[in-house]
Amino acid sequence: MALDEFTFLRWVRRRARPGRRVALGIGDDCAVIRPGRGAGPLFITTDMIVGEVDFDPATASARAIGHKAMAVNLSDAAAMGLAPGFAVCSLALPRGTRTAFARALQRGLTETAAAYGVEVVGGDLSATPGPLMVNVALFGFAGRLRPVTRAGARPGDVLLATGAFGGSILGRHLAVRPRVREAVALNRAVRPHAMIDVSDGLAADLGHILEASGVGAVLRAADVPIHRDAARAARADGRSPLDHAQTDGEDIELRVAVPPRAVARALATPLGGTPLRAIGEFTRRPGLRLQDAAGKVRRLRPGGYRHRF
Amino acid sequence: MALDEFTFLRWVRRRARPGRRVALGIGDDCAVIRPGRGAGPLFITTDMIVGEVDFDPATASARAIGHKAMAVNLSDAAAMGLAPGFAVCSLALPRGTRTAFARALQRGLTETAAAYGVEVVGGDLSATPGPLMVNVALFGFAGRLRPVTRAGARPGDVLLATGAFGGSILGRHLAVRPRVREAVALNRAVRPHAMIDVSDGLAADLGHILEASGVGAVLRAADVPIHRDAARAARADGRSPLDHAQTDGEDIELRVAVPPRAVARALATPLGGTPLRAIGEFTRRPGLRLQDAAGKVRRLRPGGYRHRF
Repeated sequence: MALDEFTFLRWVRRRARPGRRVALGIGDDCAVIRPGRGAGPLFITTDMIVGEVDFDPATASARAIGHKAMAVNLSDAAAMGLAPGFAVCSLALPRGTRTAFARALQRGLTETAAAYGVEVVGGDLSATPGPLMVNVALFGFAGRLRPVTRAGARPGDVLLATGAFGGSILGRHLAVRPRVREAVALNRAVRPHAMIDVSDGLAADLGHILEASGVGAVLRAADVPIHRDAARAARADGRSPLDHAQTDGEDIELRVAVPPRAVARALATPLGGTPLRAIGEFTRRPGLRLQDAAGKVRRLRPGGYRHRF
Repeated sequence: MALDEFTFLRWVRRRARPGRRVALGIGDDCAVIRPGRGAGPLFITTDMIVGEVDFDPATASARAIGHKAMAVNLSDAAAMGLAPGFAVCSLALPRGTRTAFARALQRGLTETAAAYGVEVVGGDLSATPGPLMVNVALFGFAGRLRPVTRAGARPGDVLLATGAFGGSILGRHLAVRPRVREAVALNRAVRPHAMIDVSDGLAADLGHILEASGVGAVLRAADVPIHRDAARAARADGRSPLDHAQTDGEDIELRVAVPPRAVARALATPLGGTPLRAIGEFTRRPGLRLQDAAGKVRRLRPGGYRHRF
């Protein structure tokens, strides 16, 4: 049987038997471990990027690849409302890699890490007959912050979104800026019920919150922020900008579920200029729906990126 | 300039500026982090294995690959005298991977982890146009155990070794058994001055301890335990069994520096049947030397495995 990403991951999750020190195991953006008395919970996430899958080795600079490998992991920590402190990085470098390239890659990793207060404390280096690959494992201590999972959204919660969606393939996908500070600020200010980052596209990632929380959601089309690149992509391929905003992967914004009473406080939280707005709400009725400007509601399929094997 | 593994890693290490919470940064078998008040130190290591480099995708079973990916990481924790508790695993699977293969790979990872008291708490899954690749990041809390680095060996210390060396290419390299329990038992019993695992070959890995500790060492040829596979490999290629024992990679035994007064206690420590013996000693004079059965001493070059780019 050919491998299906989500089916396989569900199988992995079903087999897991989290021990008593595991506060959060397989299936969310980070795992959370109780270290025992004293220290706050430890959280960890890992994400790899692969040449020809996540970037084009022919055009991406070594520094941009290093940046992206760190940024996608930072975004996974952001999705929990947490700021990581440390990383270990594994590099698989193709034969023929030049020293200058390896150094620029390492610089991309460490500079992006440092910009977010993260220190690279170890790693691994291997040759590979395949494309360049970078794996990062990113971890830190939550301290007094509560990790925000995908599972806490409740009917009536308001759906907030940072940034604007769609069209990331037009250059932005290597320069993603993870919303760590914004996520931590929101976690501190309003203790969101659920949070996720949108690296797999608006609809797909919302689907993860809906599945984990056992709720549905309605998006208001008029309120979905469309990135100008989504409009450009739409002109290029004839699909609608909203369609791009719903299904393009690689954008790296936050999706946040907050109770109605906390919305005003969330929208008033200083986020260093990053836009935040309410784009819909969670419902008891399952599934994801889109309400257009005329008030008409239609069902959305969870699109987004899926690895093909 | 073509990439050289050790030169590049030295460059990475030189650039690192470990923060105050980093007890041990880049350059040892694990990184060690002080989590702050209360909990004992956190340690973490990461290691990837790559098809065609670390195993033969045409002959290795999925389960054996999963086992090996976990085992090499367990051995890095063993090299610090520590027992890890948790792992995150990234899989890059070639297109065309079957579900049964992916499941067997995951089973290899989780079963080997469980056999050592480690829980897989998260991971990442990607497609790749290249060979299969598995990255593991393994971590845990040291509790009251002191992490044993590569840097503490002193002149006069005795060099102890578990197991027998050489010839691992003849089948053993996929079935490596990391010496976690043995390492923790030795750490508890004698607080070794330095420790390392020998995944890169006897001579090369000893070189890491010598470099980090600023000492030399003399091996007594008569005492170097030769695996029967080294003798077989020697018959096959005409090199001596001792030569294989010195330079073959992929064996996964411990090398331990203990002060003379602790040798008897170390040798008396119950290690579940794993052999442990004194094979040499550390010296003020730098470099690695081999004393043959007739008492003649010659210089050894640090051989061992090195990635070619």
